[in-house]
This record gives sequence, C-alpha cells and structure tokens, in this order.
Amino acid sequence: MPSDLPIGVFDSGLGGLSVLFELQRQMPSERYLYVGDSGRNPYGPRSAAVVTQFTLQASDFMVKAGVKALVIACNTATVAALEATREAHSDIPVIGVVEPECIAAAEATRNGHIALVATKGTVISGVHAARINELRPGTKVTGIPAPIFVALAEEGWLDGAVPDAVAERYLGELFSGPEEKLPDCLILGCTHFTPLQESIRKATGNKIVFVDPAEITARQTQAALVERDLLCSKSSFGSMRFCVTADPERFARVGTLFLKTLVSPEDVELIALG
Amino acid sequence: MPSDLPIGVFDSGLGGLSVLFELQRQMPSERYLYVGDSGRNPYGPRSAAVVTQFTLQASDFMVKAGVKALVIACNTATVAALEATREAHSDIPVIGVVEPECIAAAEATRNGHIALVATKGTVISGVHAARINELRPGTKVTGIPAPIFVALAEEGWLDGAVPDAVAERYLGELFSGPEEKLPDCLILGCTHFTPLQESIRKATGNKIVFVDPAEITARQTQAALVERDLLCSKSSFGSMRFCVTADPERFARVGTLFLKTLVSPEDVELIALG
Repeated sequence: MPSDLPIGVFDSGLGGLSVLFELQRQMPSERYLYVGDSGRNPYGPRSAAVVTQFTLQASDFMVKAGVKALVIACNTATVAALEATREAHSDIPVIGVVEPECIAAAEATRNGHIALVATKGTVISGVHAARINELRPGTKVTGIPAPIFVALAEEGWLDGAVPDAVAERYLGELFSGPEEKLPDCLILGCTHFTPLQESIRKATGNKIVFVDPAEITARQTQAALVERDLLCSKSSFGSMRFCVTADPERFARVGTLFLKTLVSPEDVELIALG
Repeated sequence: MPSDLPIGVFDSGLGGLSVLFELQRQMPSERYLYVGDSGRNPYGPRSAAVVTQFTLQASDFMVKAGVKALVIACNTATVAALEATREAHSDIPVIGVVEPECIAAAEATRNGHIALVATKGTVISGVHAARINELRPGTKVTGIPAPIFVALAEEGWLDGAVPDAVAERYLGELFSGPEEKLPDCLILGCTHFTPLQESIRKATGNKIVFVDPAEITARQTQAALVERDLLCSKSSFGSMRFCVTADPERFARVGTLFLKTLVSPEDVELIALG
C-alpha cells in the first residue's frame, strides 16, 4: 500500500470536518478525501440497518477512489457500522470515534458520572455506557439526545444567542443539581458538536472535562498509520478533496467555518451514493 | 367512491399535523389516515426527484389503504410532486398547500412585498414567486430558507427562548429596515412552521399578515370534497390513524403538542415506505 494515498474521512454531513481539521493539524502532509452524506443527513433518527447500508456505500466509494485508511468521523455511523466496515475493508485500517471517546472519558472522570451528548441513535444504543463500564465499572452515563445541535452545525450557526439557548435547554436541568451529583465529564458524542462546545460549556457551568472526538480520533488515526508504516513521508503540505451528496454551496460556506480556512464551492464535488 | 373512507394526509414528518388539526376542526366527522415520513425527514435539502419518489411511495401506501382524497400537507413535497401524484391517482382529489398560500398572499399584500419562510427546496424552486406574479404582477417575494425551524418543530420545541432566538436570527435583519419597504405579508411556507408562528410574529414586529397553510388548505380540501359529493355524512366524531417511518414515541409526544389532544404511542404505527 503506497503511503502517499489519501486518508478517507466520512460523516453524515459536515460534522466530520471537526475531525478533518484535527487530522490536518496533526498530519499536514497527508492528502484527505472527505465524503459528507449531506443529502441523507441527519443519520440520528435512522435505524442501525439503514445507517450501516449508507456507511458501507460511502466506504466503497472511498476505497474505489483509493484510500490507505478510513476514518468514520460520525458517532452514529461508528455505533451502527464500524464492525461491518472493518469486515468489508479488512486490508486497511478503519478508525471510529467511539472507542477513543470511551477511553478518554473513563480516564477523565473522578466521581464516576459522565454526560453523553449525542444523537438519539447513539444514546439509545447504549454503546458508550457499556464500553465505559468495562473500562471503569460502576460509572453512571447520562445520555442526552440533542438533534437540534446537528441542525445548528449543518446551518453553520456555531455561536451566539441560538446555540447558547439550545445548550441551556438541553443541559440546564442536568447541570443545576447539587455539585457532587453532577457529571464531571462530558462526551461530545457527535462530531457535529465540536464547534458548538463553547455554548455547551456555558450550559454546564464551566467546571467539567470535555471529551472531544476530533482531537483524540486524529491521534488514534496517526497511531494506526504509524503502526502500519503508512504515514506520508513528504514534507510538503497535502491536499483535501470534498465530495457531498447535496448542496455543495452550503458545504463550502459552513465548511469554511469548521476548517477555519476558505473552502470554495468549486472544491466541492456533488456525488451520488447508493 | 364511498364517502365514509378516510382522508389521507401526508408530510415529511410532523409538520402536516398542523394541517390535520385544521382539517379535523373544520370536518370533525371525517376519518383521517396520517402518514409521516419521519425516518427520512427533513425533505428540505433533498433533490426534487428524490422528494417525488418518496411522495409517490407514501401516496401509494395511502391509496392501497383506501382513502377518498389525498392532502400533501408539506410544501417541499407539493412543490416537487403535486403534479406527479395527481397523475398517479387521477381518480381522487389531490390537494397541495402551495396554491392556497399563493392566492391568500396575493390577496393580502398591500405594498406588493411578501416574505416566504420555507425550506431551502421550496425557496429555490421559485414556485411561489412565479404563481404570485401571475395573480398579482410586480409582486416582490423575498424567500428565507429556515431549516432550523423544521428541526425545532420535529423536536417539539414550539415556544420559549430557543424559537424566539432562531426567529430573530432568520428574520430580524429583513424586518429592521424602513417600514414602507418591509414585507407586509408573510407566508409560513412549510407546515412545520404553523405552531412556531408566535416566535416568528415577534421577529417581524407584529404588524404584518400571516398566511398559514393549515387553515386555508383545510378549507380547500373541504371544497374539493363538497364538489365531488364526498363529504362524510355522519354526525358522530371521526377518527385518526397515524403511520410513521421512524420513532413512534417522539411522534406521539410531539403530535400531542401539534394536535392539542393526547396521542398515545399505541396509536402510532411504524411502517416502511420504499
């Protein structure tokens, strides 16, 4: 496998760009192929079977395009489809976001109470609670399904009065009890939530540890590449290619906010999946 | 066609319940079959071809179940698929929401400036502007795509700080100029927006006419049934049956808010479309 092939990054829409931002920050020489299934976003309310089908379609697309590794930069897709994707593409590393989140959260909590803010699909799967309790038995995981955050991120409303009010409505009650009973750690259990974390932080009262999938998943991806000797050896800057299933203009506009660098609509290709 | 058959009401999710509420208020003896495609909501960002396919799947389901009329209680679906649905089911009346909105808005405006708040698909189609300018040449129609409103309605966040802040962000600028240039009429161009109209009204400064698809579409449906002698002749109360493609529990919870009457999860059936 040539080490100058791109890394494939997949999300249901724009959220995975928070992971891509960290990947590029940690590994700037790499080439990246980002696929956002914006035409079928949000994945949160869909069944695991449907999310698995969509994720495999996107993985096939990226593998056919030629990638050396796959990052499923979407919690809902990781929960539903990580194992199926690993089976389908056993010749390359496939990295999901859930395992790094669980390890980081189990290490961070002191009082054994963790908040998980995520899509409904991720919360009801119970995957985080199960894995965290293997790592740290007796931990309480309080799940808060927060679909409006996904809509805000897709719209590019990342700060201001609206995200603040939404965060307060989702989290205000959970974080208003006696301090010793509150969660002391919060998992941003959806890659769409990373750029909304200042609003989320305000609603929690500022005193807790945040687990952000973007940074830790990028680190795990780097480790997987190092292990297989697949890190790009060039010292020049790499590149990014974007493919979406709907609305390239919105992707360029909001992608610019996520990546903190200009994404032009001409850089975004409209593709069909499935 | 027996007049005691139910009326089919279709929406991409919960929004059509605002139309169902008005239908039932105006024609309480009728039976209703509501189909909400909550598993594939939102329709707003999807292509017209895909929305047409989904709408025909739902129409086929309702016609097979036996309905005497079809109400497409969704602007996005009406814009994309009204003609195709009428062709596929030419033996029964098929009523959409766009035509009643355009007639009401063209009649209501005094200064010839109308605001259209809708999904992106509806706004970029230009269907409202074209039809209104046939009815009232020279009318300016300012479209505001407002996808977050759909997410709020699906979540059941119909009042309070969040809808107020979202409405202000979408509409505050448009309604802050010199009064003579402001729209004097606003079309709620998505059936999800009806229960959010108090927040929307606040953001407009309260001085304009609202065109609400729910009430006028119910009136047009009644007229279509009268014309074909299909009105139910019973004097007793009718019934409602609900079918959704995902998450019956959320549908029951939020449906209770839309319909102002208790919807129990046992009354909501999970179905597959397509």
